Amino acid sequence: MEDIIAIKVNDDIVDLQTAKENGIDTRQAKKIYLDNSKESLKVLRHSTAHLMAQAVKNLYPEAKFFVGPVIEDGFYYDFRVDKKLGESDLKDIEKKMKELAKKRYEIIKYTITKKEALEKFQDDDLKLEVLKNIPDDAKIGIYKQGDFEDLCRGPHLPNTKYINFFKLTRIAGAYLGGDENREMLTRIYGTAFSTKESLKEYLQMIEEAKKRDHRKLGRELKLFTFDEDIGAGLPLWLPNGARLRSKLEYLLYKSHRKRGYQPVRGPEILKSKAWKISGHYDNYGENMYFTKINEGDEKNPKTVEYGIKPMNCVGHIKIYQSELRSYRDLPLKFFEYGVVHRHEMSGVLHGLFRVREFTQDDAHIFCTPEQIKENVLEVLGFVDDIMKSFNFKYEMEVSTKPEKAIGDDDIWEKATKGLMDALDENGINYGIDEGGGAFYGPKIDIKITDALKRKWQCGTIQVDFNLPERFELEYTDSNNEKARPVMLHRAILGSFERFIGILTEHCAGEFPFFIAPTQVVIVPIAESHIKYAKEIQNELMKLDIDSEISSKNESLNKRIRTAEKQRVPLIVVIGDEEVRNNTIALRDRRERKRSHMSLEEFKDFIKEKMDGVIF
Amino acid sequence: MEDIIAIKVNDDIVDLQTAKENGIDTRQAKKIYLDNSKESLKVLRHSTAHLMAQAVKNLYPEAKFFVGPVIEDGFYYDFRVDKKLGESDLKDIEKKMKELAKKRYEIIKYTITKKEALEKFQDDDLKLEVLKNIPDDAKIGIYKQGDFEDLCRGPHLPNTKYINFFKLTRIAGAYLGGDENREMLTRIYGTAFSTKESLKEYLQMIEEAKKRDHRKLGRELKLFTFDEDIGAGLPLWLPNGARLRSKLEYLLYKSHRKRGYQPVRGPEILKSKAWKISGHYDNYGENMYFTKINEGDEKNPKTVEYGIKPMNCVGHIKIYQSELRSYRDLPLKFFEYGVVHRHEMSGVLHGLFRVREFTQDDAHIFCTPEQIKENVLEVLGFVDDIMKSFNFKYEMEVSTKPEKAIGDDDIWEKATKGLMDALDENGINYGIDEGGGAFYGPKIDIKITDALKRKWQCGTIQVDFNLPERFELEYTDSNNEKARPVMLHRAILGSFERFIGILTEHCAGEFPFFIAPTQVVIVPIAESHIKYAKEIQNELMKLDIDSEISSKNESLNKRIRTAEKQRVPLIVVIGDEEVRNNTIALRDRRERKRSHMSLEEFKDFIKEKMDGVIF
Repeated sequence: MEDIIAIKVNDDIVDLQTAKENGIDTRQAKKIYLDNSKESLKVLRHSTAHLMAQAVKNLYPEAKFFVGPVIEDGFYYDFRVDKKLGESDLKDIEKKMKELAKKRYEIIKYTITKKEALEKFQDDDLKLEVLKNIPDDAKIGIYKQGDFEDLCRGPHLPNTKYINFFKLTRIAGAYLGGDENREMLTRIYGTAFSTKESLKEYLQMIEEAKKRDHRKLGRELKLFTFDEDIGAGLPLWLPNGARLRSKLEYLLYKSHRKRGYQPVRGPEILKSKAWKISGHYDNYGENMYFTKINEGDEKNPKTVEYGIKPMNCVGHIKIYQSELRSYRDLPLKFFEYGVVHRHEMSGVLHGLFRVREFTQDDAHIFCTPEQIKENVLEVLGFVDDIMKSFNFKYEMEVSTKPEKAIGDDDIWEKATKGLMDALDENGINYGIDEGGGAFYGPKIDIKITDALKRKWQCGTIQVDFNLPERFELEYTDSNNEKARPVMLHRAILGSFERFIGILTEHCAGEFPFFIAPTQVVIVPIAESHIKYAKEIQNELMKLDIDSEISSKNESLNKRIRTAEKQRVPLIVVIGDEEVRNNTIALRDRRERKRSHMSLEEFKDFIKEKMDGVIF
Repeated sequence: MEDIIAIKVNDDIVDLQTAKENGIDTRQAKKIYLDNSKESLKVLRHSTAHLMAQAVKNLYPEAKFFVGPVIEDGFYYDFRVDKKLGESDLKDIEKKMKELAKKRYEIIKYTITKKEALEKFQDDDLKLEVLKNIPDDAKIGIYKQGDFEDLCRGPHLPNTKYINFFKLTRIAGAYLGGDENREMLTRIYGTAFSTKESLKEYLQMIEEAKKRDHRKLGRELKLFTFDEDIGAGLPLWLPNGARLRSKLEYLLYKSHRKRGYQPVRGPEILKSKAWKISGHYDNYGENMYFTKINEGDEKNPKTVEYGIKPMNCVGHIKIYQSELRSYRDLPLKFFEYGVVHRHEMSGVLHGLFRVREFTQDDAHIFCTPEQIKENVLEVLGFVDDIMKSFNFKYEMEVSTKPEKAIGDDDIWEKATKGLMDALDENGINYGIDEGGGAFYGPKIDIKITDALKRKWQCGTIQVDFNLPERFELEYTDSNNEKARPVMLHRAILGSFERFIGILTEHCAGEFPFFIAPTQVVIVPIAESHIKYAKEIQNELMKLDIDSEISSKNESLNKRIRTAEKQRVPLIVVIGDEEVRNNTIALRDRRERKRSHMSLEEFKDFIKEKMDGVIF
């Protein structure tokens, strides 16, 4: 029988040492075994962090330790050593960790008072730093394995023998307490799993993720860039990326039109007054940027504050209000590729995933309360079509009322129920994120799973009874009386920036034909074939297909290889024969197929490809 | 022989009274006769303003007068009367003016000192207000006609008999000195011409312009709106306007691609540092909006100033710099529908013509100095294609170095010559606007003439040696040495907002088929034809054609009239016969033609229409 490594009491993981200390009967409790469950990995990785600290102490006896928490996918530990450690030292530390683990040290916990702890660690300034944040009357846990002991809340494994499959992944510097004015400590990241296979799989995934990193591919494929003079988190779209984006925008425009959405466009700066009515000023202001406009004249300046929009709803609401609406007009579906600006701390900015300026594929559906369900379902169908086109799997999650929120509880309940009913009645599974809603209403989040099985939150559908109330939206119902519409906020990609970033990693830069930056490369074998190449390019342009002619003074093979490296889906080679017969030789990189066809057949082939992808 | 009303000395218009006073021999001077020349109208309108004041004084003896300048297309006069005047009073004043003019008063000038003037007007607070701004040692002119005299610099007609064809057009309130904290005066606007026909023509134009006012049509056709809570000068595009704009953007995207332009996209907020490098901070800062971003973290906030972009050049420059460039890559043509924000005073905002946020069809061409001419010509060809598509005539104007400018004189000279050479060598006529250039370079402005013969500045081509210098742009030339490229800034529509505003007035809301908000209205005669109507709509959607089905419970005629009022170019009527035979009955509103055809023929008809308009 497998060994128990911890138990679960309510929602807490309690290790065996702590259970014993508190007189808990482990036999009655929900047991945690050593496996790859979330709970088990948390305990395993925490103890692996301690094992690493023990190994470091063994190798560098002068080492002093700060904190070593579990993070997503692993752990880290911050410490001070005299030596500047590098990647190569990780091997030595790993070796020492293996050696120590094999000694099957029992991990023993004991408890002392803060006063005792201050005395015990009086020569360890880093531990004193940790103790600073602990209340004076707290009971302080010490975990001990062999000759190593560390101040810690746990939970930990009962024995080091369970630590077998781990890897130190990265070494970095980290300011003490995250404060850039203080000392820089050494931070080592690592991870651990319960089986050899899962560790191996994880490390392979990391390797693959590095290759697919959209920042790396973004550079290689010249999709986008950033510039220090301009500012962090503000992407510049290079021609390749801008072409991709334009095609995606165009296809998505058509699919919105097909579904009865109407394009609209609101301004990007709006008086703070508008953000006060909407509630953004009080509930979202810290994420917003503001500017000032002189509304007076030169002699009598009158400065008015404006907020750069972080969301598009207010503009769409004002468009709704620009004329009287009747129940016959509903649902009204307004969509916009809305450029929004949101404040993010410099530290969390990350490629296209986390930026300060992005464009949402945003829509607002104004409908009667009775129409909520059918419209949520329409959006879910839209999501499904789009995700299928990109080969993404996805899950749904319903997020409920957050702490900072506007509107009464019963309105929230009604809205939340509306979303869940739509999902339930259509047999769609979903998780629940308690307190994860927007400040104005509950939402369904669409989480997509990429080729490396990572999950990403992209699209969202939100039911909103609050903004219609705040802006006093109205329509005339079938009894000729005033009624209040409901608003659905929805985005499917979420943001073009983030979605394109995710897609880049998902397909490793091999974008689907219909949005590939360069869809076709035409390779004329000799100069005499360039004229025909241009003819083909003109024909392709009429079909809205982006192509390039590769006529550099290089060998045919080199030019084909270059096109392949650029992940161009279709390569068309033309020589004497092709010019003579009005044909082309085609290499389909996605399908790994070669063929030969007339130019007319090629055009039909392309048209068919494009017709198939309208979402 | 015609009477002389004034003479021209250097660039000044000098009236006969002033000439006499200064002993100028009018026989030797360039003479101004009473006609519709700019100079003549200036004198005529100035005297008409005085005639109006005389009439007002006659009707309301207590009236006091402030100032009465000549403006574009006419004049106004600000004054105080006890009575609140309305439109109906204009008729009485006009009548009195006619009566007075017929008395053939000689207009006599005499000059006094400021001291004398202060004494003369001691009971007239408004004239004292005018005198405040006149230096103590100035000679002050008084013009007298009959019993009326007014403090004035002139120039004026010799006699009121020349004032025959005038019209008072509007009455309004105006703050004394434009200061909203001071008294509100009465302002009457009017105009005058030298012939009956030209006055009539002008008044008809004004009438027609009122009907075509894009703000009025914008409301009627539901193209766009504004909202007080959001802010002045910040348009909201309603579905009809947004569809029109999307189609225009799409067609223009294709035409840029066809001409070898590459799409790019830069951020909308950039560090002030970047605007300092570019020179915008010092030379254009007063027209910019700024915001602040915390670049530190929560514990250590570090506020950095950002400027919301008023132009797109910096982003494109940074994209140019994102890789090494060779002479083989040039010219590089980057285009973007760039959203810019520029400060305008509240008073000058005007519909879509003058806004605070707009989108430019902006491009930057990076080329070698030798390539300037061919690229200017390429742009001129592009301009010609687009203007023809919209039935606009246009003129060119070259603007030279302004007072506030960066860069040396010889660079300016070289750039200005480059533009003029391109025009000269191709026999293109152009005017010159001395000092009207951008702060970084000279430009060609494209001024279009609309259906009412009004001129509008839209597109522009600017040669820029300065920004490449400031950002140290480079390419490797054919000798493998570093060289500096030249930048051409260019926009053809100028701004989508302004261009659509002008176009709306130009075509009186009858937009060309290819961008009409709703291109086709399908009118099913009875309910049983709706299914076929939807089929037609689907087919049109595949062709990117926006259509509506008009199936309201209204008579056929009423529905057709509604579509006509909405200026929909094509109306398709379907009944039993059309359903049975898969045909349609077509009314072409633009061509004033009716026809009958199969659905397939209709699709071909549409395709042909669309193929013809790619610029």
